[in-house]
Amino acid sequence: MKKRTVLTGITTTGTPHLGNYVGAIKPAIESSRNSGVQSYYFLADYHALVKNDSPDRMVQSTLEIAATWLALGLDTRNAVFYRQSDIPEILELTWILTCSTAKGLMNRAHAYKAAVQANLDQGEDADHAVMMGLFCYPVLMAADILMFGTHEVPVGRDQVQHLEMARDIAARFNHHYGELFTLPEAVVDDHVAVLPGQDGRKMSKSYNNTIPLWLPEKKLRKAIMKIVTNSLEPGEPKDPDDSALFLIYAAFADSAQREAMRQAYRDGIAWGEAKQQTFELINAELSEARERYMDLIARPADIEAELKAGAEKAREWARPFLDRVRDAVGLRSLG
Amino acid sequence: MKKRTVLTGITTTGTPHLGNYVGAIKPAIESSRNSGVQSYYFLADYHALVKNDSPDRMVQSTLEIAATWLALGLDTRNAVFYRQSDIPEILELTWILTCSTAKGLMNRAHAYKAAVQANLDQGEDADHAVMMGLFCYPVLMAADILMFGTHEVPVGRDQVQHLEMARDIAARFNHHYGELFTLPEAVVDDHVAVLPGQDGRKMSKSYNNTIPLWLPEKKLRKAIMKIVTNSLEPGEPKDPDDSALFLIYAAFADSAQREAMRQAYRDGIAWGEAKQQTFELINAELSEARERYMDLIARPADIEAELKAGAEKAREWARPFLDRVRDAVGLRSLG
Repeated sequence: MKKRTVLTGITTTGTPHLGNYVGAIKPAIESSRNSGVQSYYFLADYHALVKNDSPDRMVQSTLEIAATWLALGLDTRNAVFYRQSDIPEILELTWILTCSTAKGLMNRAHAYKAAVQANLDQGEDADHAVMMGLFCYPVLMAADILMFGTHEVPVGRDQVQHLEMARDIAARFNHHYGELFTLPEAVVDDHVAVLPGQDGRKMSKSYNNTIPLWLPEKKLRKAIMKIVTNSLEPGEPKDPDDSALFLIYAAFADSAQREAMRQAYRDGIAWGEAKQQTFELINAELSEARERYMDLIARPADIEAELKAGAEKAREWARPFLDRVRDAVGLRSLG
Repeated sequence: MKKRTVLTGITTTGTPHLGNYVGAIKPAIESSRNSGVQSYYFLADYHALVKNDSPDRMVQSTLEIAATWLALGLDTRNAVFYRQSDIPEILELTWILTCSTAKGLMNRAHAYKAAVQANLDQGEDADHAVMMGLFCYPVLMAADILMFGTHEVPVGRDQVQHLEMARDIAARFNHHYGELFTLPEAVVDDHVAVLPGQDGRKMSKSYNNTIPLWLPEKKLRKAIMKIVTNSLEPGEPKDPDDSALFLIYAAFADSAQREAMRQAYRDGIAWGEAKQQTFELINAELSEARERYMDLIARPADIEAELKAGAEKAREWARPFLDRVRDAVGLRSLG
């Protein structure tokens, strides 16, 4: 029997930060070691293209993100780790699915609707500056998922709709052409840690409050020292539940450490001291991986080779599967 | 210097009929012998998929259409003759272009607007039963054209908008990423022959009035005998300019034959005799090619081999060109 298949996409935009690490990368890498499932991890560079970023930033981001996942110990013997654009079959499937997707379904996509609403709020045309990449990418996502017979896709709440769309597209296709696609399920982890940034809001590129994951030790310390705290003096009791610094500490701590720090806040630990301990904790978790990362990022050809090997593994499945899909829709050899 | 490149797409739906032959196939095949241009002819099966026809009819139509063009003498040494779905690079380019296409442009496509209008006229939602294939295919068409540095696309008036869209998409891409794409031009031949069908309306599948191109001799004769005429008796003068039969004859005749038949109408030729002469003229033009067609259609593996050889030639250009496009947008090897 086919193992349960789990698929995780990683958008190749930006530089990984502590929020990505805690909320997404770390749990995903732990899952990659589960030999009871067949897992796929891919660098979603065709999705990144939707954002129309600069080409050089695209490449740099792909390099940094690939090096990050490898340095943190993604198990590439157990999991298949590939770059989306190395699998041309994905876009062949995307077009085939495009022909089985109702336009009305795409009209209801959250990201598209948000863009339309923003336009209307500004008094612009509904589709002002909206690109077809934004409108069509749920179909690409469906192809990513359906290509590998995926059973489960770990996602945040905001991604559940995409899974529903993939199911809808698959069901329509199966109805018309025969049962080829597995209907995937969204697996939502509501306990996923959301890390605050330096200003206390959610750590996010768009708030400009991120702490990059691979800062050298000194810069990491400096970045942590800049986390906003209140003006309570050393010795004055502090509320851990009202402190971004505490939440960041807690995300890296085990339960004993967390409890001890909670007590230290109540006992009036100085902010400087709390920051120093937070730095030390994070640095201890990352320092070994940071060395691996620095080593890896200096050898891009080796990362490329790793991705190419992953693509070969992915295509061993994708090519014959796509051939079945092509046959089903009538794209067949003539003799 | 690169030769002027001319590209012609052939949608793989339905069975070729006399109207296709006169209006499209015959002039295109004559052009394929022009060694002064680099011409590409492709079976547009990814476009055919938009129509969601039955898979078996898709295959049958592809076979019949490929055999038709080969039997009629498409010069595959001078022209590149390939099947769209044998070129995965086309869909890679389609996605890249999708990310450079404004949704507003697609909103204005004639075929999509006609579908919306038909829905609104019926009191339905604007996008009722509209599929993404219909909405997105102008981008696929742009990829078909832009992939080969096409200078000219011979089209009917109804296709001019698609060429404008391809130019628009290319120009936006070139502006953002550098001058990679040649801006194609529509070449409209307003003198293209429109053949009437058996009932006198334009010969078209949708009117169910077609005469299939490769009917065996007896059936061809029978089909021509069924062309609607008026009730004028033998000996009564007939108006060639008010006769579907005459227009069909004229489409196959040289000018001397045409003039002679015009005179015969005025002299009161019997309808039966005019039909017999029309049959003989058409049959004389088609009989040799019909034998080649019957021979070819019985050897689908040879047609497949011809298409595969064409695909190889097409990919010799498409692969390195796509690599330049990928490089431009930032889909690059890491080392």
